[in-house]
Amino acid sequence: MTEAERVVRDLWERIQARDWDGVAALLHEDFTDEWPVTGERITGRDRYVAMNREYPEPWGPVSVRQVVAAGDRAAADVEVPGGDSVFRCVGFYELRDGRLARATEYWTAVGEEEPPPGREHLTERF
Amino acid sequence: MTEAERVVRDLWERIQARDWDGVAALLHEDFTDEWPVTGERITGRDRYVAMNREYPEPWGPVSVRQVVAAGDRAAADVEVPGGDSVFRCVGFYELRDGRLARATEYWTAVGEEEPPPGREHLTERF
Repeated sequence: MTEAERVVRDLWERIQARDWDGVAALLHEDFTDEWPVTGERITGRDRYVAMNREYPEPWGPVSVRQVVAAGDRAAADVEVPGGDSVFRCVGFYELRDGRLARATEYWTAVGEEEPPPGREHLTERF
Repeated sequence: MTEAERVVRDLWERIQARDWDGVAALLHEDFTDEWPVTGERITGRDRYVAMNREYPEPWGPVSVRQVVAAGDRAAADVEVPGGDSVFRCVGFYELRDGRLARATEYWTAVGEEEPPPGREHLTERF
């Protein structure tokens, strides 16, 4: 397992544990994270920790579905059940000197959109 | 560049070129792809090619934002402008014997959701 994979797995384990000091320890102070789906940018370790800490309960348990990692980068597909939705956080993460420096996280939910009509002959629903 | 990265980059280059025979040549006949956001599964190379070929124009130009690859797997963050939206396809891909065997693709669009109220103090909009 690369260091980037280990740090990303630790991140999600500590988020699940609500271990906010532990989460902070994995991040550079200037850590920035972009959430393209809602067009939000979170600048700084403290804001990222606060965003997670303040996120309305209930959510979890977090389940890391897969990680692909190479060099200082990792991509992760993570499931986070929350309320009436099953969220997926698909993230790309960059390490610098062993801690997370940047991320892009795409938050979606399973089945949150209806497919447009006209392609039923090509798909099965799940 | 790993073989998995090369195949995923070739895939998107050929999709952009509408080179459907070239796309098919990168896939196993039993290639399967899941689209969790709409809960759709595409079973088989021919259906995957048809789904892309039949997707309503205009779309493109495709731009591969980043790829993380290791062993037989790759994750890619790909931008596909289309109509009034700027789509992002975030995919995880598995190779078998040099061709794509499985994928999970999360289709989202930049800014397609409004953030819930109450976290404006933690974010900037972009």
